[in-house]
Amino acid sequence: MKIVCSKSQLDMAINHVQKAVSVRSTLSLLDSILFVAKDNEVHLTGYDLETGIEVRFEADVIQEGEILLNAKMIAEIVKKLPDETISISSDSQFTTIISSGNSQFNVKGLDASDYPQLPEIDANEKLTIPQSMFKEMISQTIFAVSTDESRPAFNGALLNSNSNVVELVAIDGFRLAVRVEELDYDIPDVKILIPGKALKNIQSILGDNGDLELYTTQNHIKVNVGEVTLISRLIQQDFMDYHKILPNTYSTRIEINTKDFYHAVERADLILPNQDRRYPMSLKFTGSQIMNVTATTNVGNMEDGVELNYFDGDELEIDFNQRYFLDALKVINDENVTVEFNGPVGPCIIQPVEGNYFTYLILPLRR
Amino acid sequence: MKIVCSKSQLDMAINHVQKAVSVRSTLSLLDSILFVAKDNEVHLTGYDLETGIEVRFEADVIQEGEILLNAKMIAEIVKKLPDETISISSDSQFTTIISSGNSQFNVKGLDASDYPQLPEIDANEKLTIPQSMFKEMISQTIFAVSTDESRPAFNGALLNSNSNVVELVAIDGFRLAVRVEELDYDIPDVKILIPGKALKNIQSILGDNGDLELYTTQNHIKVNVGEVTLISRLIQQDFMDYHKILPNTYSTRIEINTKDFYHAVERADLILPNQDRRYPMSLKFTGSQIMNVTATTNVGNMEDGVELNYFDGDELEIDFNQRYFLDALKVINDENVTVEFNGPVGPCIIQPVEGNYFTYLILPLRR
Repeated sequence: MKIVCSKSQLDMAINHVQKAVSVRSTLSLLDSILFVAKDNEVHLTGYDLETGIEVRFEADVIQEGEILLNAKMIAEIVKKLPDETISISSDSQFTTIISSGNSQFNVKGLDASDYPQLPEIDANEKLTIPQSMFKEMISQTIFAVSTDESRPAFNGALLNSNSNVVELVAIDGFRLAVRVEELDYDIPDVKILIPGKALKNIQSILGDNGDLELYTTQNHIKVNVGEVTLISRLIQQDFMDYHKILPNTYSTRIEINTKDFYHAVERADLILPNQDRRYPMSLKFTGSQIMNVTATTNVGNMEDGVELNYFDGDELEIDFNQRYFLDALKVINDENVTVEFNGPVGPCIIQPVEGNYFTYLILPLRR
Repeated sequence: MKIVCSKSQLDMAINHVQKAVSVRSTLSLLDSILFVAKDNEVHLTGYDLETGIEVRFEADVIQEGEILLNAKMIAEIVKKLPDETISISSDSQFTTIISSGNSQFNVKGLDASDYPQLPEIDANEKLTIPQSMFKEMISQTIFAVSTDESRPAFNGALLNSNSNVVELVAIDGFRLAVRVEELDYDIPDVKILIPGKALKNIQSILGDNGDLELYTTQNHIKVNVGEVTLISRLIQQDFMDYHKILPNTYSTRIEINTKDFYHAVERADLILPNQDRRYPMSLKFTGSQIMNVTATTNVGNMEDGVELNYFDGDELEIDFNQRYFLDALKVINDENVTVEFNGPVGPCIIQPVEGNYFTYLILPLRR
């Protein structure tokens, strides 16, 4: 293989595919980036056997071919090369010369023919979705994807589309995040479970303009964003019928400024040991226009009062894991939210005041 | 103690004194910040028994007194409090209430009377030096301060003043950095060895405008910068007579662009394992206007050619630890440097082309 290409394009392509490169693989193949030069294009691929990212760009292909180069090494070399033009050439012994200006690196590549092939995607369905919209949908649900591998159905988010409505849903057993969007055109019906890691990779390749194209098969998803293609395995598990657990009543209902609420929870978080159910954050509603937030631990205690815009229903004292509130309140861009409680042991629902495109359910901690 | 003060002033003061707070002390006292309220001023102190930092600011002192508060905790609480005004009050049981707006923290402090006293500085000498100048002097020498505790004389930098000349010198056994400045006024003669950690703390409290006042005794240094006072123990060791090891001849002399040289060394550094003397960076001068930089390791090899502005003397091949060049070239702000070599085993001297306020010596590696 011998190519001459632009440093900035190569750097950008490496940055993208590197996200799918295994960081600590036992296979040194998977620490590498696959370079394929053909038809005056270079294709770069990173693949950890679950998610693959491929980027293609135009280059001066002097000799077609392919080589595997250690991802971390090639990324660092490219960043530090002096000129905007880079030449890469490898011989039949996989010795690879990377040069630019007066600088020349001579490193050992690996045989590309040993690299695992990305699955062929013979797609059933194609969804076209604005990138910025899907990026926000991911950011407002991904935190509720569980990393507990003993329950694989919770390790991804459900992508559910039906006529012009697209929905992303994540559940981890203690909370549920649902993000809905309406498009002004119809898309195919799809119901797939995308792994959390793939969602994070998709998020990282999305920009603020233009659409993404999403293709699905029974087992895989393929996402096209400009010159970048991402392929991922899907999770083959049944997803909980979450509509059943969303209550449609409430016993206490408040409306509150999102940032004020967030900052009070942040202050409670300062003295609460993370994930220790013995030390919850307590919310107390006495019927007045103030929500009392308290936290008491061996460190000390913290008391706060946040003004409510609106209060309706029963007085209440209820305990939560404060982190579950932080995760959601951090990504809600609306100025105010409504929070509906169903007694001290029933689920709590957070929604923006305007519209119902985002619904977040948290189970309280039992005293 | 009971005080009411401004959040921004308290936050700034905590940030300064926190640098002298022990991060992992066995004494929980030293993890704390001392608060002393007196005469409508609050004094905050952090002290790790070697370096102490004190900051004072005006506050509304409702009840004089003192308390020790865990540094990390109070720093986080202050950052997250809602209003610009903060009230702190502690009772005789060291229970401390920190409140702002509707938020209130109730934490346990410690008895301030157990806190170690900062040494009294009855200074012999006072030096007044522009802050920005001393900051640059530190940044251009501190990297050559050794952290190898088996040789205490190398764990600090020598501050040497004589009439209107002030000098900071660091040696670690393999290299030497000397930074000299001339003032337009006389300062006392001083010769003290400031610990590297104290130098770093001094650097962190220095701004770009105004002077610092530096007081010395036999055992201590005191630095005043506005409302901030730093006290540190000095190293009681003889410092090497470094003038003796600075050669005043050369066999090869070059002038080179500082950034071009730095970037070539950075590229060599990419494939060189840090601190492994078996894999040096090699410089080669063949009498042409090009300096060849090469590095060969088990990873591969790297070759570079940097244009010289000027070459004089013998042809030469010489090996170095590339990190020693990176450290110095990074902090030299001059466009071009001269480098003088004394054969493949003699010391090498780097200086800016204009002036001799900075001199850096590196010993080569023996092949």
